Amino acid sequence: MFRLLILFTLCVLTRSVSLADHLPVDGGDDGYRLWLKYEPVKDLSRKAHYLKYSSFISDAVHSEITGSAAKELQMALNGLVGKSVPVVAKVAGRRGGIVFSLGPDSTLMPLQQEGYQIREVSGNIVIRSATEGGILYGAFALLRHMQTGQSLSGVNVKSTPKVRYRMLNHWDNPDGTIERGYAGSSLWKWYELPERIDPRYEDYARANASLGINGTVLNNVNASARFMSREYIVKVAAIAAVMRRYGIRTYLSVYFAAPKTLGGLTTSDPLDPKVRAWWSEKVAEIYREIPDFGGFLVKANSEGEPGPQDYGRTHADGANMLAEAFKPYDGIVIWRAFVYKADPNADRFKAAYEEFVPLDGKFDPRVIVQVKNGPIDFQPREPFSPLFGNMPGTPLGMEFQITQEYLGFAAHAVYEAPIFKECLDADTYVKGQGSTVAKVIDGSLHGYTRTLMAGVANTGSDRNWTGHPLAQANWYAFGRLSWDHQLTSEQIANEWIQLTLTRQPKPGAHIQALMLRSREIYVDYNTPLGLSRPWMGVHFAPEPWQSRGARPDWTATYYHRADSAGLGFDRTANGSGALAQYRPQVQQQWNDPENTALPYLLWFHHVGWDKKLGTGRTLWDELCHRLYTGADSVVWMQQQWDLARTGLDNRIYADVAGRLKVQRREAIWWRDAWVLYLQTFSKQPVPKGLEPPRQTLEELKKSVGVYLIR
Amino acid sequence: MFRLLILFTLCVLTRSVSLADHLPVDGGDDGYRLWLKYEPVKDLSRKAHYLKYSSFISDAVHSEITGSAAKELQMALNGLVGKSVPVVAKVAGRRGGIVFSLGPDSTLMPLQQEGYQIREVSGNIVIRSATEGGILYGAFALLRHMQTGQSLSGVNVKSTPKVRYRMLNHWDNPDGTIERGYAGSSLWKWYELPERIDPRYEDYARANASLGINGTVLNNVNASARFMSREYIVKVAAIAAVMRRYGIRTYLSVYFAAPKTLGGLTTSDPLDPKVRAWWSEKVAEIYREIPDFGGFLVKANSEGEPGPQDYGRTHADGANMLAEAFKPYDGIVIWRAFVYKADPNADRFKAAYEEFVPLDGKFDPRVIVQVKNGPIDFQPREPFSPLFGNMPGTPLGMEFQITQEYLGFAAHAVYEAPIFKECLDADTYVKGQGSTVAKVIDGSLHGYTRTLMAGVANTGSDRNWTGHPLAQANWYAFGRLSWDHQLTSEQIANEWIQLTLTRQPKPGAHIQALMLRSREIYVDYNTPLGLSRPWMGVHFAPEPWQSRGARPDWTATYYHRADSAGLGFDRTANGSGALAQYRPQVQQQWNDPENTALPYLLWFHHVGWDKKLGTGRTLWDELCHRLYTGADSVVWMQQQWDLARTGLDNRIYADVAGRLKVQRREAIWWRDAWVLYLQTFSKQPVPKGLEPPRQTLEELKKSVGVYLIR
Repeated sequence: MFRLLILFTLCVLTRSVSLADHLPVDGGDDGYRLWLKYEPVKDLSRKAHYLKYSSFISDAVHSEITGSAAKELQMALNGLVGKSVPVVAKVAGRRGGIVFSLGPDSTLMPLQQEGYQIREVSGNIVIRSATEGGILYGAFALLRHMQTGQSLSGVNVKSTPKVRYRMLNHWDNPDGTIERGYAGSSLWKWYELPERIDPRYEDYARANASLGINGTVLNNVNASARFMSREYIVKVAAIAAVMRRYGIRTYLSVYFAAPKTLGGLTTSDPLDPKVRAWWSEKVAEIYREIPDFGGFLVKANSEGEPGPQDYGRTHADGANMLAEAFKPYDGIVIWRAFVYKADPNADRFKAAYEEFVPLDGKFDPRVIVQVKNGPIDFQPREPFSPLFGNMPGTPLGMEFQITQEYLGFAAHAVYEAPIFKECLDADTYVKGQGSTVAKVIDGSLHGYTRTLMAGVANTGSDRNWTGHPLAQANWYAFGRLSWDHQLTSEQIANEWIQLTLTRQPKPGAHIQALMLRSREIYVDYNTPLGLSRPWMGVHFAPEPWQSRGARPDWTATYYHRADSAGLGFDRTANGSGALAQYRPQVQQQWNDPENTALPYLLWFHHVGWDKKLGTGRTLWDELCHRLYTGADSVVWMQQQWDLARTGLDNRIYADVAGRLKVQRREAIWWRDAWVLYLQTFSKQPVPKGLEPPRQTLEELKKSVGVYLIR
Repeated sequence: MFRLLILFTLCVLTRSVSLADHLPVDGGDDGYRLWLKYEPVKDLSRKAHYLKYSSFISDAVHSEITGSAAKELQMALNGLVGKSVPVVAKVAGRRGGIVFSLGPDSTLMPLQQEGYQIREVSGNIVIRSATEGGILYGAFALLRHMQTGQSLSGVNVKSTPKVRYRMLNHWDNPDGTIERGYAGSSLWKWYELPERIDPRYEDYARANASLGINGTVLNNVNASARFMSREYIVKVAAIAAVMRRYGIRTYLSVYFAAPKTLGGLTTSDPLDPKVRAWWSEKVAEIYREIPDFGGFLVKANSEGEPGPQDYGRTHADGANMLAEAFKPYDGIVIWRAFVYKADPNADRFKAAYEEFVPLDGKFDPRVIVQVKNGPIDFQPREPFSPLFGNMPGTPLGMEFQITQEYLGFAAHAVYEAPIFKECLDADTYVKGQGSTVAKVIDGSLHGYTRTLMAGVANTGSDRNWTGHPLAQANWYAFGRLSWDHQLTSEQIANEWIQLTLTRQPKPGAHIQALMLRSREIYVDYNTPLGLSRPWMGVHFAPEPWQSRGARPDWTATYYHRADSAGLGFDRTANGSGALAQYRPQVQQQWNDPENTALPYLLWFHHVGWDKKLGTGRTLWDELCHRLYTGADSVVWMQQQWDLARTGLDNRIYADVAGRLKVQRREAIWWRDAWVLYLQTFSKQPVPKGLEPPRQTLEELKKSVGVYLIR
């Protein structure tokens, strides 16, 4: 006999159900549901198998976060197996349900506490964790398991995150615009807050929690002081209340000069006692409204933003002052290392290292220094930042960019997992072979416990969140890697495709092939052989000819250094010497142009146009071949997408097919821009077998100019 | 016996069905479908009645536009009566269908040609018009008839538009932002065009066509020259191809200096032959891509925009030059009269009249001068612009603002039909009593045939199009009035509520009451007694104290003229003399402060604080009472909304309820700002019975300051 089950909620799923329930009847899939589609399981025996575990959900914890887990499971099972599953407080000897088991264990490290285990125990699926958050992650993992059609018999899945702070950075402005946003306007409706809570906030939280993301910075690093005002703290608190239910802590970017501009003080000097008191009181005010506030993210003395150097202080002085304000609370200060000076004779590559390595060991333990993956700025391919491994006394966090600032906005398909992995897997040799960037970031190399991986978000108000439907995979990949950087690009793509696009193997394989090659194809037509393009302008259009700018290091010629002799930036000892910032074993890889892997060649060497490369071609010929091959490979991508059509929703098929056409056109644009411009230096024809550009350099410049007009 | 029906389409409704098919299953109504919901008819006898006319749709015209009409009817009947209705070419003696009857009649004026008649003939519902567009409008009218539950037996509905060019003006920028947009980012995805056509373009076209709107200006009047480039013309053409299927012609705003900045000429002087040739070639290029292109909208020599005056030429010179370029085509030039000079001693009120009246009769017949409803700038209440009626030799078009620049953005509920009607119904007395603005605009007063009504759009990428769900009614009201300015605010509200929110009478009545009073309530707490607020800053927050700006006429004090003696702008002969721009009968209404209707009092008079008004209160007391009554009336609005709850979708209920809370808070903010600031001049206490503001002026200024921070 079963004892009476105490149902504490059956009437479920009102507002938050929207992700799952916006399925258009036959207008096609609009992409809103992301990878949380929960569509009916088609295989009847598999469905029957899942039904065996769908009698109840037992949530004895009955907390906000486990409540979210239970609600998600209810909604998902309703979709997957078509059953309204009751949530009960106690198992009471029953079988055939999903059981939450909270086992707090103070001996575990914080990271281990967030881990979960999913096991079949006495006919139930038990999700066990030391924390409520871990149970939520376990619930999403279970659903991923089921959505990809795996068996639950004897299931035993265990997972622990490798990084502690897994977060998105939103470069969203208070006016609703997004710096480097290509998917509509900001998700945050500041003018409606705090009274109106957009239902989308919860769906945003669900999507992130499903990946294990546990933090979000709501506003742009080029920060408005507005967010430190009482008015905005209350608005932020309203969003934080939604995030909290999904184990996500809310953070803010701060404007370093706020004590002056908002607080009315005469200075923002971090050593001034009044300034310190202002920040302490400000942080206290925030915690009164947001008890689980995460902390501050700071861009200081960078690209015109104010900072401690305005007062002759160091980055450490600035960061430590803020850290002091967080002393009474469980919050952190994330200080960005993205700094460089407008010096025509310097090498921007070296700037962050030069400024930050001398400060190693001087930061308060509450500070994490957040470093972009490469030394410059989110280029299609960059060597890893030489800071990684070289600040053993300071926790370094990773900053990846998910939004496609240099990757074709929302028009080009570029799967970014290989970019993230390339950096994480790079060996710094700091403690001998195997000292990968991943080990720096996850703290294992130097014994940090405050570890961080951040991704600059690609989300916006567009219905499908990311503009390009395939860009959803980049959000997904970032989240999954922030939890476990050992997952492979292939695994993640395969998982995402199954959850989001199709479970049919053949179409899935074509899409996976497209995704996995997309980054190299993009590099080929955009920045082959180690070229880069962090010039000012629209970041959308090719402008290799750009030689004038507000700063010398905001021109194209500063980076590619094309001249009649050749192309590329000499960073060896004969050049800027930037290579010396790496360990000898790394220097060895890139020091000699003869041995430098071609993808990095022009990052480190100025190479003659007629220099024969390992491919047997001269630099000029190889460049042309890569640019042409890259542009032509977009046709191959189109073909792969067409071959997958039978497995795809019509609307998503058409959406991506349209964007691939744009990508093809723009790939040719990039190709021709490089070829025609560099030809003015190389003085050589386009190699035989490749059709010379149909447009002239002047025509091309004109077409680019259009995008620079107000 | 029936002859064989030739079905030329049964497989219908793929992409364009999305408006109707995004109905969330139980997540609530997200508002995407606007007033085109087509939900199942609940009354069974009514449903049976409609089914009698749902056997077929006969489209013998078989054109793009009638195809849209047929598709819409199919989709709608599928929703309303749950039947897939076939589209056939010929009626062939059958009964029980909907029949398109195109009867071209060249004797009709263009306006009459767009009209339609819906009649029951031999058991069929016949939609007859001289044009395909008229048939489309008739189809939407028929659906409105059915959606509001009216009988089709012996139906005989006839309607002809009163204005020829009925259009939206989008102030959308090429970077996706919208000037004065409060509902997300631009609908137009320039980076994806022309290859990818967002399915939303078609739903946008459907919504507009359903109201009779037949033109759209895609880009901001503060125009980018980009739109004149080949790259962008091709993108525009892709949107125009969608609009064309719904009888909507596409227009562009132009940057007057484009010949210089884009064309590379040394001048943009409208009398320069090279400039004229450049524009002619540009217009020809546009028509090659967009054969039904509508024309140009121009903001010139206004708020820093370039124009003919830069070369010592007149607005007429500039407009006529562009008109010349349109000579070979059926396009027009719409020239805005929104001009004023930065002169601290002038009265901005008079500027447009002073510049444009002397040019009357000098414009090419292809030019329409577009005039804002009031002389200043879309204030919550303005007297009608004195230009109306005073340019008998020039067609004047109306420019209304639908987006709520000065009406609380997307946070405040303000139903705008009464604003539009107030202006249209105003009597200019130009040809004696009854010379209403409406008669100027529809051409009947002076015999214009090129007539225009434009509305600055409130649409954006937000899922529900307009941010505030009730703001959809403003788009609707504008469209309906552009077709027939004799409709009343009540009729339009009633219609919109039934189509969009609820057909239950009691809830509907509460919502209608809320809507109809909303504008006066807003005026009461925002700009009572004829105050105005066109100051610079964020247009969101109260700043009556603002006395410094980039221009003298961009300050608050320029407009309200508060001093120790009193308040208001003297525009009589003793003051700026602006009243003299009106006919004597109008002057009479507003010349004497004793007789001036209170809503216009401070528009025309500087009134002493202790002056007794018709209400028996002094100016100061009356001001306070209106500000307090207005703010308190928002509570009444909340109550009306709550009383309507049983008739409302839950999600829409919650959305508006949240926004009303914001409105209540901000209404108090506005009230207190005016009271505390004006109190520094009046030196009087808040009248007895009203609770004095809880905040000080300094605190209030600080809270406003937050919104002015970068």
